[in-house]
Amino acid sequence: MIKVSVIGATGYTGIELLRLLRQHKEVEVKKLVSRSNPGKRLKDIYPQFPDDNNLLSKYNIEELKESDLVFTALPHGVSQDYVSELYNNEIRVIDFSGDYRYRDVSIYENWYGIEHKYPEIAREAVYGLVELNREMLREARLVANPGCYPTASLLGLLPLLKKGLLDEEFIVIDAKSGVSGAGKAVKEAFIFNEVASSIKAYGINSHRHTSEIEAVIADLFKKSIISFTPHLIPVKRGILATIYTKLREKIEIQDLIKIYKQFYPEGGFVKILTEGVPETKYVAGSNYCYLTLKIDKRTGRLVIISAIDNLLKGASGQAVQAMNVMFGLPEKTGLKGTALFP
Amino acid sequence: MIKVSVIGATGYTGIELLRLLRQHKEVEVKKLVSRSNPGKRLKDIYPQFPDDNNLLSKYNIEELKESDLVFTALPHGVSQDYVSELYNNEIRVIDFSGDYRYRDVSIYENWYGIEHKYPEIAREAVYGLVELNREMLREARLVANPGCYPTASLLGLLPLLKKGLLDEEFIVIDAKSGVSGAGKAVKEAFIFNEVASSIKAYGINSHRHTSEIEAVIADLFKKSIISFTPHLIPVKRGILATIYTKLREKIEIQDLIKIYKQFYPEGGFVKILTEGVPETKYVAGSNYCYLTLKIDKRTGRLVIISAIDNLLKGASGQAVQAMNVMFGLPEKTGLKGTALFP
Amino acid sequence: MIKVSVIGATGYTGIELLRLLRQHKEVEVKKLVSRSNPGKRLKDIYPQFPDDNNLLSKYNIEELKESDLVFTALPHGVSQDYVSELYNNEIRVIDFSGDYRYRDVSIYENWYGIEHKYPEIAREAVYGLVELNREMLREARLVANPGCYPTASLLGLLPLLKKGLLDEEFIVIDAKSGVSGAGKAVKEAFIFNEVASSIKAYGINSHRHTSEIEAVIADLFKKSIISFTPHLIPVKRGILATIYTKLREKIEIQDLIKIYKQFYPEGGFVKILTEGVPETKYVAGSNYCYLTLKIDKRTGRLVIISAIDNLLKGASGQAVQAMNVMFGLPEKTGLKGTALFP
Amino acid sequence: MIKVSVIGATGYTGIELLRLLRQHKEVEVKKLVSRSNPGKRLKDIYPQFPDDNNLLSKYNIEELKESDLVFTALPHGVSQDYVSELYNNEIRVIDFSGDYRYRDVSIYENWYGIEHKYPEIAREAVYGLVELNREMLREARLVANPGCYPTASLLGLLPLLKKGLLDEEFIVIDAKSGVSGAGKAVKEAFIFNEVASSIKAYGINSHRHTSEIEAVIADLFKKSIISFTPHLIPVKRGILATIYTKLREKIEIQDLIKIYKQFYPEGGFVKILTEGVPETKYVAGSNYCYLTLKIDKRTGRLVIISAIDNLLKGASGQAVQAMNVMFGLPEKTGLKGTALFP
Repeated sequence: MIKVSVIGATGYTGIELLRLLRQHKEVEVKKLVSRSNPGKRLKDIYPQFPDDNNLLSKYNIEELKESDLVFTALPHGVSQDYVSELYNNEIRVIDFSGDYRYRDVSIYENWYGIEHKYPEIAREAVYGLVELNREMLREARLVANPGCYPTASLLGLLPLLKKGLLDEEFIVIDAKSGVSGAGKAVKEAFIFNEVASSIKAYGINSHRHTSEIEAVIADLFKKSIISFTPHLIPVKRGILATIYTKLREKIEIQDLIKIYKQFYPEGGFVKILTEGVPETKYVAGSNYCYLTLKIDKRTGRLVIISAIDNLLKGASGQAVQAMNVMFGLPEKTGLKGTALFP
Repeated sequence: MIKVSVIGATGYTGIELLRLLRQHKEVEVKKLVSRSNPGKRLKDIYPQFPDDNNLLSKYNIEELKESDLVFTALPHGVSQDYVSELYNNEIRVIDFSGDYRYRDVSIYENWYGIEHKYPEIAREAVYGLVELNREMLREARLVANPGCYPTASLLGLLPLLKKGLLDEEFIVIDAKSGVSGAGKAVKEAFIFNEVASSIKAYGINSHRHTSEIEAVIADLFKKSIISFTPHLIPVKRGILATIYTKLREKIEIQDLIKIYKQFYPEGGFVKILTEGVPETKYVAGSNYCYLTLKIDKRTGRLVIISAIDNLLKGASGQAVQAMNVMFGLPEKTGLKGTALFP
Repeated sequence: MIKVSVIGATGYTGIELLRLLRQHKEVEVKKLVSRSNPGKRLKDIYPQFPDDNNLLSKYNIEELKESDLVFTALPHGVSQDYVSELYNNEIRVIDFSGDYRYRDVSIYENWYGIEHKYPEIAREAVYGLVELNREMLREARLVANPGCYPTASLLGLLPLLKKGLLDEEFIVIDAKSGVSGAGKAVKEAFIFNEVASSIKAYGINSHRHTSEIEAVIADLFKKSIISFTPHLIPVKRGILATIYTKLREKIEIQDLIKIYKQFYPEGGFVKILTEGVPETKYVAGSNYCYLTLKIDKRTGRLVIISAIDNLLKGASGQAVQAMNVMFGLPEKTGLKGTALFP
Repeated sequence: MIKVSVIGATGYTGIELLRLLRQHKEVEVKKLVSRSNPGKRLKDIYPQFPDDNNLLSKYNIEELKESDLVFTALPHGVSQDYVSELYNNEIRVIDFSGDYRYRDVSIYENWYGIEHKYPEIAREAVYGLVELNREMLREARLVANPGCYPTASLLGLLPLLKKGLLDEEFIVIDAKSGVSGAGKAVKEAFIFNEVASSIKAYGINSHRHTSEIEAVIADLFKKSIISFTPHLIPVKRGILATIYTKLREKIEIQDLIKIYKQFYPEGGFVKILTEGVPETKYVAGSNYCYLTLKIDKRTGRLVIISAIDNLLKGASGQAVQAMNVMFGLPEKTGLKGTALFP
């Protein structure tokens, strides 16, 4: 049994993580740390967990030392100190924030507007996109769990990037997300009357995940400049990323699909849909990512559609998947659930 | 391992059942019978099941004989013949339709407007509300899985009925259901533009579940006449039943709660919420039922709120729970999932 | 031209009122008073009003004296002082709050938990349900605009009450409301992720509108004790009230419909639907109320379904209707818009 | 009074048109032609129109001759014959279908897969985007009402196209639409359970509106090849188009805004939002289009966001606007309604 604790247990990614950990037969939950609700039981806040009697506790590094792994589901900026202390105490960490996703912290500082106090730890972190970094994750001490948009986007692009097929001058990512991506934000912009029945773009040309996607692409391939626009859609879960790209050379669709299927072998979480088109309902409630590739012969462009559940493959599910790799378990352990539909 | 088959695998209750059976460690799925799509794979119709390669097959009684249990998820009327054939071939059955829910088939014939061809089999069927008929279910050969509204309503009333506390002259049940309760009905009334942003009542004074609730109450207690009105709400899953009743004698709320907690002991699927009020989001995606009791001192009435997921406790989850009882497994096997929230 | 001003212009009922007043050819808007946003333009807060250059101003009784009518769309409790000052300055007022809806302020004080400082003004107020008090409204100096739930409920009951046909011992009102009924409340309970896909009851046995309905019934008929439960439904607009009653004498449905059609003559805002059942989509965006009557011969009860738009007939539309009566205009002036569908 | 008739009165664009015409003080509705429901009253099908006693009639060219204008709201392909007959009888027509939107019918035939029987009439049609063709509309005998996506897209691009500022090699339009855009389609893909809570792309690289946008651009500017992907969003109304472009020369944002404000002067339906970002809730229920321009200095690209109500500015509202121009009325007559919010 892996002994795990969670810091930030009562946010949406926190409770989604707990939902998954409760179904994971190789995990024992030790501490649930909540900065906002220490002393309460989880079910006092979330009646969704009627049989969970875990007490929420304050952060105490001593108590966490008995854990093999700590998940930190904290806001960016806030995470820096917690992670560094855990790291320095030799506790393995999977961090949900943006704080440790950049090897070069100057990019982080630039896009997040926050100083990074631990650049040397950031350099040690492994970016937790399992399909990209499976090998490095096995021994990782600190895993930076990818952002939701970068996960959907990069899974759509990785095979092309690895093969050098992409024209780095033409990458446009238009992403649509459910509202749970904003977390439990009690702000006017997120009340039902403001969100329901409406569609909007936000963070145009300035969303931080732009830099995260570019940083990973630069590592794999070469510097590229992407346009990325996220949109808020009145659903609770799900991201659909529509990616417009250009290929460096002419290629038939069957060959392209072959490349993708080699990169994402049968049995994994990434599925190539050759009939139909991904909809977020195919994945909401599951850790799958669905991809479809559409070459436009008329324009010579390639459109890639990528669908994930932002709270699963885009956050807590992906973190459990990374944990499985870190501890030598089959990657799908505890993650076999299919989408909740309808 | 229990060998199970499903007839009617591609309706919404069918795929919800399969979602659950895939997570159930003591079950082996043998045949998936689909009248509409034989020869296809489940994932051809529902991309939600990417790793399920089961072929959908035609109905063949010989092939079903190797199953210990068959679930029939068919429309009422259609189910009669299938169930009787399975029954006569000594195969245990859990039937999702209304066909075998009435010991006295004349009530069925009256409310459903269909002749019942197998009244003697109907008399043998056990009504599958586990919290009511747990003992009888252990040896049951044929289980009539309760309707979704009767489940929500009866769970709210059972403890009072058993104690004879209810005034049978005053029972009003106002129920609100998500649209999945209508199944995969491709009709104008169920398209998005007609359902979204609207609220409506239907089947006023004439919904068949009225008779189902009354029949169970009559068995337990005495003849009562209820008013029952279902409503269609633009959510996918969930039933909230608001029950207005009168008590035969004065009783304090704590004593009432005690009666309910005795009837539904800790660890089961029925939870008594003493703070807050049940919302369907507490149960959607889980097999739980949440109840709250509110005595109105001013009017002398008792309001009971009951929340379930119509596809789980109201259909497929309850069927798996009954199966567990029939085969001597702990009741929660394969059903420990908490609600998917947000 | 009627010169009108609005205090509380930027709440949801405020902007709905402005939307209507802008279409009203006999109205000239003078002052828009906003306690929260004085100095801004309406379109700075609501881009929905791109061509409205009105400046929001602070409350100033002197400036309001040039208005023939002031609408006060303020929270209960807050409204008391504003209304009394306007009243004492001989300015006609339509008040949206609960503050002046009770002739007997002790009921108000009991249910709202607030002292009423102006009982003598409250006694002068006319309850603004036009279909009930049309005559008294013509000369009214102060109109208490009815609550949304009381409007839907009373319109369903008035003809029976007037005829003395109702059994006052058996009135159960189960109401379902869209979220705009809560106003622009920035609270966790109202963020999209908490409201969407869920159904809940609230204010069980304790909602203030219970007392408002009872008070009007008592005035018309005799003391009755009702059960009233409101529910929150994930739509933005619309109330559906399902009313369970018992008649004092046997009556055929055609005769009942005749009584209703006499009470609500052709051409008004209340429509009796004899085929189909009211859905909130029939009225959302309009000032209509739809009613259906269903006698249950089996139980001897009568079920009444009533649908309104809570922001129109349940608030701002009804206020404009009352204004039309107060100023001798045809009742539908500026209110002819049909529902926005789909 | 303009005498108008509608063919195809009971589709969603048909009833939206009627809703608008009922508020239009210069219009007299003569005939409502319905192919599916002749002989019924509008309110029998849509209870939303309780006071509309218009009988739906069969198509009869003789009866339509007394109309000054006929709106044809028919499916593409079906419209060809009706329009040509009306045209040949000297009745002015505004056609909602795609049939007469292309001067060069070979493009139509290619993208719609339908032969065009009246190429010479198609050459006479005026494309009804008022902001583009206001002058030509005054005398137009046949107006091709633009498609919903082309309206949102072209309004975002027109000022740049007119100035020759756009790099025709880089136009990507990612559009999100509410479900009413699909009309009253009773198909599995459009039932509530399939649409709600999900996001999907459709018609990738093959949607007909691609060719419509390209054809207009080619007329104005020069041949360009665009990528266009529409998405289905679980809201009823609203289109948000996110347009990714490149400018031919460097330009400051203030200058760009100046160009747009010159093209769309104050008082019209197109609004340039310089603070905040358009959301479809700003326009749903109104005929406005909101635009925002965002230059990305990092990438040198320009992102344009355009929001309309697909049933108003994207269909019936735009048709009324065109009618106003054709008959010399102020453009906003009958179209002053602001968005219905919340």
